[in-house]
This record gives sequence, C-alpha cells and structure tokens, in this order.
Amino acid sequence: MTEVETRIEALRAVMREWGWSAAVIVGEDPHNSEYTPSRWCQRRYISGFTGSAGVVVITLSHAGLWVDSRYHIQAARELQGSGVEMHRMVSVEDMEWMKWISDNVPAGGKVGIDGICMSQADAVRLQSLLSVKGTSVISRPDFLSAIWPDRPALPQDSVWLHDESCSGRSTADKLSWFRGVLAEKGCRYALVTTLDQIAWLLNIRSNDIDYCPVVISFAVVSPEGVALFADGAKFSSEVRETLGSDGISVYPYGGVAEYIAQMPANGRIMTDPSSLNYDLAKAVNDRFGADGTVCCASPIDVEKSVKNAVEIEGFRRAYVRDGVAQTRFYHWLEDAMAAGEQISEADAADKLHEFRAVCPDFIDESFETISAYQENSALPHYSTVRGHDAMLQPRGLYLNDSGAHYRYGTTDITRTIALGQTTGLEREDYTIDLKAMIDLGMAVFPAGTPGCRLDAVARRPLWQTMRNFGHGTGHGVGNVLSVHEGPQTIRQNLKDQPMLPGMITSDEPGIYREGFHGIRHENMLLCVSAGSNEFGDWLGFETLTCTWIDTAAVIAGMLDAAELEWLNRYNNNVYETLSPLLSAGDSAWLYKKTRPISM
Amino acid sequence: MTEVETRIEALRAVMREWGWSAAVIVGEDPHNSEYTPSRWCQRRYISGFTGSAGVVVITLSHAGLWVDSRYHIQAARELQGSGVEMHRMVSVEDMEWMKWISDNVPAGGKVGIDGICMSQADAVRLQSLLSVKGTSVISRPDFLSAIWPDRPALPQDSVWLHDESCSGRSTADKLSWFRGVLAEKGCRYALVTTLDQIAWLLNIRSNDIDYCPVVISFAVVSPEGVALFADGAKFSSEVRETLGSDGISVYPYGGVAEYIAQMPANGRIMTDPSSLNYDLAKAVNDRFGADGTVCCASPIDVEKSVKNAVEIEGFRRAYVRDGVAQTRFYHWLEDAMAAGEQISEADAADKLHEFRAVCPDFIDESFETISAYQENSALPHYSTVRGHDAMLQPRGLYLNDSGAHYRYGTTDITRTIALGQTTGLEREDYTIDLKAMIDLGMAVFPAGTPGCRLDAVARRPLWQTMRNFGHGTGHGVGNVLSVHEGPQTIRQNLKDQPMLPGMITSDEPGIYREGFHGIRHENMLLCVSAGSNEFGDWLGFETLTCTWIDTAAVIAGMLDAAELEWLNRYNNNVYETLSPLLSAGDSAWLYKKTRPISM
Repeated sequence: MTEVETRIEALRAVMREWGWSAAVIVGEDPHNSEYTPSRWCQRRYISGFTGSAGVVVITLSHAGLWVDSRYHIQAARELQGSGVEMHRMVSVEDMEWMKWISDNVPAGGKVGIDGICMSQADAVRLQSLLSVKGTSVISRPDFLSAIWPDRPALPQDSVWLHDESCSGRSTADKLSWFRGVLAEKGCRYALVTTLDQIAWLLNIRSNDIDYCPVVISFAVVSPEGVALFADGAKFSSEVRETLGSDGISVYPYGGVAEYIAQMPANGRIMTDPSSLNYDLAKAVNDRFGADGTVCCASPIDVEKSVKNAVEIEGFRRAYVRDGVAQTRFYHWLEDAMAAGEQISEADAADKLHEFRAVCPDFIDESFETISAYQENSALPHYSTVRGHDAMLQPRGLYLNDSGAHYRYGTTDITRTIALGQTTGLEREDYTIDLKAMIDLGMAVFPAGTPGCRLDAVARRPLWQTMRNFGHGTGHGVGNVLSVHEGPQTIRQNLKDQPMLPGMITSDEPGIYREGFHGIRHENMLLCVSAGSNEFGDWLGFETLTCTWIDTAAVIAGMLDAAELEWLNRYNNNVYETLSPLLSAGDSAWLYKKTRPISM
Repeated sequence: MTEVETRIEALRAVMREWGWSAAVIVGEDPHNSEYTPSRWCQRRYISGFTGSAGVVVITLSHAGLWVDSRYHIQAARELQGSGVEMHRMVSVEDMEWMKWISDNVPAGGKVGIDGICMSQADAVRLQSLLSVKGTSVISRPDFLSAIWPDRPALPQDSVWLHDESCSGRSTADKLSWFRGVLAEKGCRYALVTTLDQIAWLLNIRSNDIDYCPVVISFAVVSPEGVALFADGAKFSSEVRETLGSDGISVYPYGGVAEYIAQMPANGRIMTDPSSLNYDLAKAVNDRFGADGTVCCASPIDVEKSVKNAVEIEGFRRAYVRDGVAQTRFYHWLEDAMAAGEQISEADAADKLHEFRAVCPDFIDESFETISAYQENSALPHYSTVRGHDAMLQPRGLYLNDSGAHYRYGTTDITRTIALGQTTGLEREDYTIDLKAMIDLGMAVFPAGTPGCRLDAVARRPLWQTMRNFGHGTGHGVGNVLSVHEGPQTIRQNLKDQPMLPGMITSDEPGIYREGFHGIRHENMLLCVSAGSNEFGDWLGFETLTCTWIDTAAVIAGMLDAAELEWLNRYNNNVYETLSPLLSAGDSAWLYKKTRPISM
C-alpha cells in the first residue's frame, strides 16, 4: 500500500467509528487564505495532490479528487497509483462534487466536514442539497488529526510590528476609522477573519504563511478594545505592550468561538462571508442571531487597497531596490551565458534571490519565483523545481516572474528577455504583448471606472491579431501582505469595484503557445488623478516598476508612435533612476540596454 | 386656473371620495413600453411634462414631479405656472419619490396607484416601504379615466402579418421553439406582456405606437394554442384566419386577468418581471401561486436578437435603401445651401423623410429624426420642433440621427457633416469620435465576450484625450420592431449578455460641447464569426450601414494607418454599392465625396 492508500484506509476506519458515509476535505485553512499553512494542507495529506484548488471526497468504497481544468495534467500525474480517482470539474461554480455525494451517499447517511476549514456558503449549500434525501452534514473540526500523528502545529514565528514609518498610519487611527464605519453600518462589533485584514488593521506581521507575512489569527473589534486570537508564544513582551497600548489583548487562537459565545449581545456584529468558516458562522449566529449579524464585504478591503502617501513612497523605493537587483541579475545572466556557463532555471532563480537578499530591507520573496525557459514559459503558473528544471540555451525567450517584500513595500514583476536568436513568431508575440502592457499603462479613464472595463484596453492588441490569455490582466498588491490583493481587479470577469487613486495594480498580459514559448510583461501601476475638465474627473496610471524592458525582440514597426515613445522614455527613466545606485559595470551595461529604438 | 391645475383639482376631488391621501402617476403603459401610446400618457395629462421618464405624486396639498438630471431643464420650463413642483432625483434607483410619500403621507393613509401601469417590482417596493407606517397601497386600474373625459381609446389601426419573406421564420416554427423552451424550464404556460416579444413570436405588426409597429396586446401561450388579447376590430378576417391556422385566438384586450383566473392550474407559468404590471402579477399569483410561477427574463429576447439569414439579408437591403435616400438628401442639402436657400433643421428632416418615403417598402420612421445644427447637436436627445428649430448656416457641423422601418428591416444611422468652415476643435472632436466608431467596427474579440467589455474599445480614443459621452455606445435593433432592442448592449453598465453572431448592434460614440457643437457617428454592426485558432473562437463585426462618411472635417494625421484604410475602403464600398441605384448627378456627387484621403 502506498502512503496515501494507508492514510485513506485509516480515515475509513475512523469514519466507520463515527458512522460517516463520506468525508469531505477541501484543503482550505480556517481563514480562506490564498496560501495554506502546512497544518491545513489536508487535501495534500490525504490525496498526494499538491495543487492549490480541489476537493477530496472519501467514501467507504471510493476516493475522488475534483479539480478544474487548470490542474487536470498535474492531478493525473500526482494521483497515479494512489487509488484516488480524478473527477474533471467543468464548472467550479457548479460544485459538481456536491452532486456526486448526493448521488452516491445513501439516504439517511452522514457526511463529515471539517467546519473550520469549509466556508459557511459551501457548507450550507451542501446541507441544503443533501437534506432532501435525509442525509445530514456533520462538522467535526480538525477531524483529520485523528489519523495524522505528526500533523504540523501552528507556526511559532514571532510577531513584528509594521510600524508607522512603513504603514503610514497608526493602529489607533485605523481602529478609530474602523469603529466609525461599524457605527455607520449600525454595528457595535466586528469579527475579522481574513488574515491580511487583521495584519493591516493592527499593523502586525509574522512569517506564518510562505510569501505572505501575516499572523494566523482572528480578531474581534469592539468599542472597548480588540481581542486578538493567536498563539501567545509568538508575541514578545514589547510587542504585547505596544498592542496593549492600543487596547489589543491576545487570547489563545482556538478560543474565538467560545469568546463569541460569551459576548454581550448588546449590539450587532459585522462579518465577511467570503472568509468566514462554517463553525464560526454558527457561533456568531448562535450568539447574535440573523438580526444581530451584518454580513458584508469587509470595509477594510477597499481602505487597505488605497495606499497612503507613506505607502506609495515605500512602494516606489521597493521598486527601485528591485530594479537594482534585477539589473545586476540580468547583467550577470548575459555574461554567464556568453561565457558558456551551464545555468538552469533554478540557478537563475537562486541568483536573483541573492541579488535581492543583499538589500538589508529585504524580508522574503512575495511568491515563488517563476523562472522559465521557452516551452516552460508557456505554462502561466509554471513551478521551477530544481532537478526537474530546464537548462537555459543561448536562443529563444526566458521569462522571470518574481517579487519581494521589502520592509516598506512589496514587488511583483515579470520580464521576458531574448537569450539570443528569436523566431519571427516569438518577436511578433513579444511585441504584441508589450503593446498590450503599454496601452494599459498609458490608459486614461473616467473616475469611477471599474477595472473590468479597462481589461479590453490591454487585450485589444492581442484580440485584433486573434491572440488571448486565460488569466487576469491585473491584481492589487498588499503592502508587505498578500501579493494578490483585492478588491480591484483588471480582468474578464465583471466586477463593479471602481479603480481609485492610490490603488496599486499589476498590468500583466501574456501570450502562451504550448510546447513553444510564453511571454508575459508585467509592470505595477499606481492609480493617479489625471485631472478634470468639462467631461469630468480623469484617472490614469503611474508606473512604479523600475526594471528595463528588453528591446531585442521588439519589432519597432508594430508599435504605434505613442507606444514607441513610451517604451523609449520608460527605459531611459530606468537608466537615469538606477544608474547612481549601480556599479560602473552594471551601469554601463544598463545604458546599452536602455537606448531608444526606432521604427 | 391653468388646464393642469384644473385637472389636479378634479383628481383631488375623486381622491377625497376614495379616501386617498396620495395618488401616484408613473406614466408607463401596461407593457412597460419604451414609447407610450397616447391613452397612457397619464403623466403628461396630469402635469404637462412631456419627457419620457418621471413620476408624479399628487396629495391633497402638494403636486410633485420627480425627474432625473436628463430632464431638469425641460421640466423646469414645462412645469412653470402649473403648480406642480419639480423634485430633482439624484439616483433613479433610489426611487426618492417613494421616500417622500413615506415621509409626507400620514400613518394609516391610503396611496392610490394604477396597478396596470406600474411594474410589480415598484409596487411591491412601495408597499413594503409604506407598510411599516400602516399606510396601504390601493390599485385602481385606469383611475385617471374618472377625470379624463376625452381620454384616447386604444389605437384602432389594423394588424398586418410580418410574413416569412421578411421574418425568415414561420409562426408555427417560433411557437414550436418557444414551447420547447417552456418545457425545458418546467413550464406549461407563458404569459407574454412585452409588445415586441408578442409581435416577433406571432409575426404580427400594427401602428399602435409611434415608430414601433407593434400590436397592443397580451399573449398566453399554452400547449393547445395561443390566446391573444387585443382589440378585435384590428383584425381582418384574413389575418384572423391565418392566426387561427397557427392556433392563435383573439380575445378582448381587457380580458387577460379574467382569462388567467380561469386557466387550469395544471402546470407552471412563465412570466418576465421586467414588463409585468402589478395587477397582472397579482392575477398570476392568485391562480398559480409562487410555486407555480417561473419569473425570468423572457427567452424570446435573446432568440429575437439573433437575426436569421433572411432577416440579415433584409437589413442589408434596408441599409442600401437608406443609403440611397441619404445620398440624395445630403446632395440636395449641399446644393440648396450653395444656392443660398434658407433651410431649417425641420426642413432638412422633412426632406430626408421625402427621400426615404419614395421607396415602396418604406413603412415609417423608426424614431423621431434628430436634425440638429451646431449648439443644438450638443444635446444628444435634441428634439427638432418646427418653429423652435434653428436655420442651417454654411459653417460648422450638422448632425442627423434618423432611421426607418422598411418591410424587411429597420435602420438607425447618424452622420455629422461639415456645412462649411469648421474650427480646429470641431475637426479634432470629429476625428476622435470617428476613430472611436471605426475602432469598435474593426474590433475582433473572443466568443462569449459581453458587450460591456467592448465599450472601452470605442471610448479609448476619447478617454486618451479626456473626452467622453454620457449615453451608451450601442444598442440592439429589432426587425420592424423597436429600434432599441435588447438584450445585448455596448455601454458603461456591466451586463453579462455575450455578443452572439447574428446580433445587430449600433456603434454610436459621440462628443458633445454644450453651447458649441455635438458630434455623433453611428454605424450598424452585424456580429459575425471571425474564425477559430488555438486561442479559441473569434467574433467581429460586419458594417451594415451604407452611407458615406464626410471626410471634410477629418484630420487624417490623427487616424492610424488601419483606421485610415478602413475609412477609405468603407467610403469606396458605399460608392460602389449605391452608384448603380443613383441618378448620374447623385452618383457623380457621391464619387467626389467618397474619394480616399491620406495623411
């Protein structure tokens, strides 16, 4: 028996004991975080599947994994020999695994879930689907612990303060603002369950989740103070004291439901259903009832997304730091390749890490670096794994998508460069994709425009030549928080959140040709006022990213005059900004790389 | 006392008799039609306001009209001396008049509505707002008849058949399709209340509403047949016989609620809440109950919007007919102006009507012609009224937005032309707006793209120069039906209806400078397949409109190469297509007008 088979059999043994016909493992953490701490990688533990979305259903006679098309190839490979069968989901919204349970679990049976790791919405939907057959849904928090002896504990890293010099706003001021909003919405309390919202509101950070420096915690905000539920061992007495001066008290992580049960029901409580887990939703409902609960998108998300002046300055600084590291990296890469050195994708990623890490303000990468050569770059979410990675060759295209947290800002940048000769199709794709990035960067639009209405501005050069890409065009970025942050997005899905001055959003169109090459250009854009006139108020973008764009693969004649001028001005700015911070050798190299091109 | 004051006092007298504290007059017809037959111009009768949106509330001591910003100037003028006070609505969605009633009508009072002329949604919202105060809402159909002795009757025009040579699809086939959809949705019946849906489904037309050749009617579709509720005098025995052969029986217009009350409740009924009036909604609910009623957007709307091959050919033909009329008109206009004739906006509109009406297939204009010179053209919805219209001068810009129903298709076209010298700003605006129209016309986009995602493609040239316009960019067009037809739109509001091959949609960006000039260019676009490749299926547009675009005010250097090529090719095509149908003089004139321009 494989390891996975052994685990599934162990689960079936306890399922028999509990009288369960099926167990559902969704693999989210209790906060619906984008990146899951190892303690809650339950889907991976029970199935061996390492992808970041999917649902496992185990019955006494069947083990299945439901995944969408992004993961079909990966799941097929990883599930081989595990006894877990892949179910291809056609539509994520349709929750086809629920239907399967309804069809395959006998009437009157019990279906077990881990209610702290499943959203309220999903659990209720499952319940209502099964209730017609008399099948009940049982929540047993952490049920996998029964068969997972060496299950990782909560991360023990210490908490640090993201102080006002970096956050630009004191905790007292943020809390005062938040309490004001609560009062406006007729609420006395708020239960905050999203990790980056808590980190932002309380100006705290830790290393609990890879790439996303949040503190695993819940927070209850009341007029009198803030109850912060987190592992107490993570707080130094100094941090504890600072928090205390803002009325923030630390309670054990697991105590939140009990705390809610004992709260005075002398006012309404606000919760955000998008991250509220089923068990906590039940605790809130038991105490406050439907009339005492206001469920809405947390007002923290928009407030957090609009960066203040200190944060904006921090981001600018971070992108300059990043530009220095990137310049040194690409200069090193060119020289090493020219010298005939054997460099793998993982080598390149490590080297870029080195150049970033020398900066004393560097904290960590903001996500796993994608270092991808030719056909690997055609996979938008390629994972560079040493030993399975490709060697760079002196021809074709190399794509690097990476980013870092500096103490005062977070970066996310993609550059695609030519490693030598390129084909006509590579240059065409490269240029068309560059047009797309530039067009969005140059966009001017009326105040109030939602990001989804700008998506076509970026895609138009691709569409006109019948090219497209399957991911979003832009996402918000947190300040030393998640590199993917809402509420604004620039993408195909319709969403009415307007772009607001101060929002920082990526601009990353791509073109991918499976088996051949992939291209993505990504700059980070700050939304700024572009003035007012008789037609209204106007917004535009300032580009924060400060890393040269390779012109080797550009077909200048395919750019229009405005695009070409933008490109030449941008590269020249990069040189002027970075040159004083570079060695003479790096500066001279960058000078050559940033010379204007013409039609 | 003015006429309006007399009417309001008469209404108050009957309100006292009925015990009403307030009466609401919304001014819609029982079908929520865009254009209201005179019988239901109740808002105009009671207030004197002639605009097409607004709500009148009469209490015993106050008379108010709630209008949005589009009508503030007009309402202020028309209400002068009427005793009716204008209330400026900030947000149409907020229904501020309801709040006013709630604040000003005493608890326990009665508020009267005409339930056949108010939507179910609005009436229910009013009820739930007032019920907290114990105020009740009373529906009294046609209550204004009590004080309106010479109220117009239902239109008496005869019904004609829009036969298969023009509709491209038999009534039997449409009914068979519709019954299939009903069965899929678990419905046995459908109540169809939108006039253009009934006209399309049953291939009938009449002149009941200006510019929109529908039959004022309701229809109940069942497996056994169709009950059509309309004035029986409108049907010749021949038409009646043809309808009968498709199982369609004519019943009195006013009998629909009673008919519903007597239907067997042996299946569910489908209704579309967007056009269902309050009284009919109540009748349906009384008979079928909530469980027996499926409320949804009518499937007829999408089916109707996707034109079949015969319809597409009909539209092409209609646009050629229109192109001939327009060529003759603009040629006449140029000659007449050159000869120093005094021509007013209304004269020009009449002349264009003449040139259209000579075509034996011409039925009627498809909307009221906007014939607007200079500052008048800056009002996007300018109404050309003889006696209040401007004289054309041999300088600046003239805008003509007009259209016609031909037996086989409906047109809607705007052209802006230079009548002589133009200013630099006029030429800039003219050219930028033309870029916008051309860019949308040339757009290629993935299958499944909703129209709202294409809006920015048209607006981008305006936005980049900080210009914009307040109306939508494109609307669907019915086949000898409403010139404004859904469900697809190309506009700022987010709506997820994809553009589908066969849909016909306008492309009409504009630039308006109050007090100076207005520019709008409008072509009609047929959505067509643009092929498939590894990136998916692609759609694009074929331009149906066949009327020359004036190049006199174009700044060629502001167009990019693709736009300029499009313009020259388009104008040349117009000449090649129309020339064989024109007199030698008109043809020679058009030849000159359609010569290519260069940068």
